[in-house]
Amino acid sequence: MTNDASFGPAIHRDRLERASAEAASRDLDALLITPSPDYAYLLGYAAPALERLTCLIVAADAPPALVLPRLEEPLARHALGELANEISIVAWEETDDPIALVRTIVDGARRVGVQDQMWARFVLRLRAALDPVELVAAGPAMSALRRIKTPEEVDRLRSAASAADEAMAAIGAERLSGRTELDVAKRIRELLLDAGHDVAGFAIVASGPNSASPHHEPGDRLIERGDAIVLDIGGSRAGYASDTSRTAFVGDPDPEFVALYTVLRVAQAAACEAVKPGVACSEIDATARRIIDEAGYGEAFIHRTGHGIGLETHEEPYIVASNDEPLQPGHAFSVEPGIYVAGRWGARIEDIVVCTEDGGERLNTTSTELLIVG
Amino acid sequence: MTNDASFGPAIHRDRLERASAEAASRDLDALLITPSPDYAYLLGYAAPALERLTCLIVAADAPPALVLPRLEEPLARHALGELANEISIVAWEETDDPIALVRTIVDGARRVGVQDQMWARFVLRLRAALDPVELVAAGPAMSALRRIKTPEEVDRLRSAASAADEAMAAIGAERLSGRTELDVAKRIRELLLDAGHDVAGFAIVASGPNSASPHHEPGDRLIERGDAIVLDIGGSRAGYASDTSRTAFVGDPDPEFVALYTVLRVAQAAACEAVKPGVACSEIDATARRIIDEAGYGEAFIHRTGHGIGLETHEEPYIVASNDEPLQPGHAFSVEPGIYVAGRWGARIEDIVVCTEDGGERLNTTSTELLIVG
Repeated sequence: MTNDASFGPAIHRDRLERASAEAASRDLDALLITPSPDYAYLLGYAAPALERLTCLIVAADAPPALVLPRLEEPLARHALGELANEISIVAWEETDDPIALVRTIVDGARRVGVQDQMWARFVLRLRAALDPVELVAAGPAMSALRRIKTPEEVDRLRSAASAADEAMAAIGAERLSGRTELDVAKRIRELLLDAGHDVAGFAIVASGPNSASPHHEPGDRLIERGDAIVLDIGGSRAGYASDTSRTAFVGDPDPEFVALYTVLRVAQAAACEAVKPGVACSEIDATARRIIDEAGYGEAFIHRTGHGIGLETHEEPYIVASNDEPLQPGHAFSVEPGIYVAGRWGARIEDIVVCTEDGGERLNTTSTELLIVG
Repeated sequence: MTNDASFGPAIHRDRLERASAEAASRDLDALLITPSPDYAYLLGYAAPALERLTCLIVAADAPPALVLPRLEEPLARHALGELANEISIVAWEETDDPIALVRTIVDGARRVGVQDQMWARFVLRLRAALDPVELVAAGPAMSALRRIKTPEEVDRLRSAASAADEAMAAIGAERLSGRTELDVAKRIRELLLDAGHDVAGFAIVASGPNSASPHHEPGDRLIERGDAIVLDIGGSRAGYASDTSRTAFVGDPDPEFVALYTVLRVAQAAACEAVKPGVACSEIDATARRIIDEAGYGEAFIHRTGHGIGLETHEEPYIVASNDEPLQPGHAFSVEPGIYVAGRWGARIEDIVVCTEDGGERLNTTSTELLIVG
């Protein structure tokens, strides 16, 4: 998967330059980027986050530097290709202190951004070693670059979404009753890979009362007639994430459940319809919530309406009441309201939507009708 | 995988109590443990590390508290079982500030430990919200608990190692020439699962010149006659990690490679033999390094000899020149010297070894002879 996230040297050279400019514009002398989606976004390959420090230093006023353990150097040079010649690569030996190497590189800095997911062990050591340098979150600078997807990135999200749709259609056509949640989840992981994902990321199979737990972990429960089943599946393809949810019912659906589901479906469609440039993320959330509230299920919609998606399954922008930022063309995010009745059942419908000049484009195209399964 | 790491409520209650005592003995008012192997070690289930804060607070002088997003609460209560009644569970809504909830819980603290892999975004927010509370690494306290494996933990490591051995034996019996590294890696992932792993963690297939890159990412290179191939595979079973490496040669091995490999094999065996209580980790490293140095390959052994293993593939104790801590019964770690000749070939042999009163027990039992493959 090393090169999953790669778009070629020209794109990554440009991203490194824009990251440097972002740092400068935010009065940051450098961004310290440890292995993470930010790292993959900038360099085009995913390095493992390990106890040995690997750290890309994007300076506001100098070429990038990459501090990494010597044993990772061949992989990095191979993955970086010609870009390796434009980055000062500093390989450290097992008994060296990599934090001291970073300190030397950012010597003279006053304010430095640290990658959002950098491990605390490194943050604390950097704070001690760089003192009195101010450490702040690199997240806003990196998110400013990553939150607007280019057409090429949207293509990758579309292709990941199609693969997830293919897997969802396949599992929806299978008999589920008499199988355990875990069996069905394993089958979904196979289907995600068969459909073209490089990584089968997750497969939530929440049946019967478990469907009221939004992040239920599939277990040994046997699926049976009369169960509602929330299927929330995704993975990654060429570095970009897929994430879609559909709800199934085993056998003839209970009229009460159909009523609940109909409200959810109307709310999810309305939220997708509301997507256009200038509309606040909070308004997309409110659109779904209003409909669910008015139908009397407000208390049962216990999570935000969605999350941005790209190299990460969850990234900015978040579609939540507290986020008033206006949507822009290139924003890609999930629209996934849910209704959960503890101890009884739950339902969720999730599509990935991209904001375009003309409104929202759904990347997931399978029907949102209640799936009736055997 | 929720309950993978579980040993039942009694064990996890005891671990929580010992973590609390560790905090007290290190003058820490609390440990803040976000989703991570430490979290799974204490609570017996793996929660996802996400942008929504989940944080277990292990106080030195109060019962544990668990701050988590409301939508994760059903999963947590389900996974915790009866333990949920002994933990104060604080669920936050999408628009709440979870950091403020943590602040309230650790009110009055002077010194707090943060989990080693906690995301920087949370560390920075906690630092600001808790100021002037001193934030230090929780790693030493958690490692003091985790570094010595109980017999039950060693059993899980042994069962994970057997599964990895089974997968290694199976791939070693297949024809590899004419296949790409990526194909072989995918096959190994299948074999890891077939052999009983819950998660197929990694499959390094480094062929020909790529075998000189210790962490090579399998690619499209076609394996051919005359290739050395480093196979480094592992996953996790019941929460515990496996990690083993063997080296293969396609067709009749080159005498020069056999000479190199023989030295490596002697060095790896000697390092395993040297394991016993009281011997310093650095001495295990030196044992392998001395033999490789004397044979003239010293410069080509570019990494430490090993790493601890347990819930994580890499954890303490590290078998590295800079670590003089004495081995104790219950320490489990890899012994994996390697010799890498850039541009040409490389070799590595890796077994997981547990230190017992009577010396080292190898958990990997496949032959370390050079694998000859078609």
